[in-house]
Amino acid sequence: MIDTIAFDGDDTLWHNESLFSMTQDRFRALLAHAADPAEIDRRLLEAERRNLAVYGYGIKGFVLSMIETAVEVTDGRVAGRDIQTLIDFGKTMLQHPVELLDGVAEVVEALHGRCRLLLITKGDLFDQESKIARSGLAERFDAVEIVSEKDPETYRRILERHGVEPGRFVMVGNSVRSDVLPVLAVGGHAVHVPYAVTWAHEVAEPPAEGYRRIDSLRELPGLLAALRSGAR
Amino acid sequence: MIDTIAFDGDDTLWHNESLFSMTQDRFRALLAHAADPAEIDRRLLEAERRNLAVYGYGIKGFVLSMIETAVEVTDGRVAGRDIQTLIDFGKTMLQHPVELLDGVAEVVEALHGRCRLLLITKGDLFDQESKIARSGLAERFDAVEIVSEKDPETYRRILERHGVEPGRFVMVGNSVRSDVLPVLAVGGHAVHVPYAVTWAHEVAEPPAEGYRRIDSLRELPGLLAALRSGAR
Repeated sequence: MIDTIAFDGDDTLWHNESLFSMTQDRFRALLAHAADPAEIDRRLLEAERRNLAVYGYGIKGFVLSMIETAVEVTDGRVAGRDIQTLIDFGKTMLQHPVELLDGVAEVVEALHGRCRLLLITKGDLFDQESKIARSGLAERFDAVEIVSEKDPETYRRILERHGVEPGRFVMVGNSVRSDVLPVLAVGGHAVHVPYAVTWAHEVAEPPAEGYRRIDSLRELPGLLAALRSGAR
Repeated sequence: MIDTIAFDGDDTLWHNESLFSMTQDRFRALLAHAADPAEIDRRLLEAERRNLAVYGYGIKGFVLSMIETAVEVTDGRVAGRDIQTLIDFGKTMLQHPVELLDGVAEVVEALHGRCRLLLITKGDLFDQESKIARSGLAERFDAVEIVSEKDPETYRRILERHGVEPGRFVMVGNSVRSDVLPVLAVGGHAVHVPYAVTWAHEVAEPPAEGYRRIDSLRELPGLLAALRSGAR
């Protein structure tokens, strides 16, 4: 019944948001002299949302939004060495080791060869390619698609390119907004695996039905077996 | 003989480097109080080269390298408002109208439908997608490939994906380093169309033979006719 399984990358196969939130902790501490933590978070999220249409997703845009927020909350009196610190935060993030989530290596290995495996990940091309290479998982996937936005049109294009019928396709990811809703919209199946932290921008109300939710990727093979046998 | 023509985007179909060099003029003026122009250019190019392995190509990385250079040449005494100015330079670049080079619209239109047309462009995914959309040319191409680096492996993968024999493929672009040398390395044809300005990092010695050079894309149809008739 289902012959193509696609995985999201960030926060589904490897840790990502935790790296952003750790960096944001440091950002808050760096600017503690200028504003209170909640105010800094609010201004940063505002900057990120405002800049999304110009920068797209990814670490470089995040760093530029941190710098902009630092200038803003200090009324332009930010120290040059603090700006350099923010740039260094970004470089550290970009070079951070890729840490797979629990069970990922085993589950991907178990599914490899048994059905077509895709990796569909959103964000900065260069950064995503680098993470995929460092994840050690690249060889396990039949194809990798790095996209700038995950909307129904994106999924439609990918399914068409790979000749996959939506009803035989399941997307596995941590974001209701990016991995569940648009996939259901094109007639595919979706499995939601929540991650410990969700970026405020990605928060979305899950649909009432039509998708599955698991707590760990370790539950995926069992769920797929159930889906294959036609159980809903 | 040749049935697939691929175009580079930046500085082949639309102006790009001129936008960088215009911004760099402003950057030099902004920091004129701290260092002389040649020194600023030297430090910026150093930063760009050092950061390429972390940021990849594109405007966001360029802005981060400008900010880093500004902190460096002012010994950390850069003004917050100057940092904001650099961020604004970047946003202006990212939203700058896409200006096609002379003859591009006509030549692409003339070739459309007569052979397979690909667009193979290097850089930031989000920025490139946005430029392609704004160029008005997207519909004219059978496929668009946005890549993080143009090396022989990249071209090999693209040719394979589209089922193109290298001997029937011609790449048209402004960069010897990215559009000519790696294409010849995989057995394809290459047409070099130099642009008025070349980023120091892209400068490369052209090969002694094995490729064609034209001064304007307007000469392409004639050259292709000659290649088709087997003339060398």
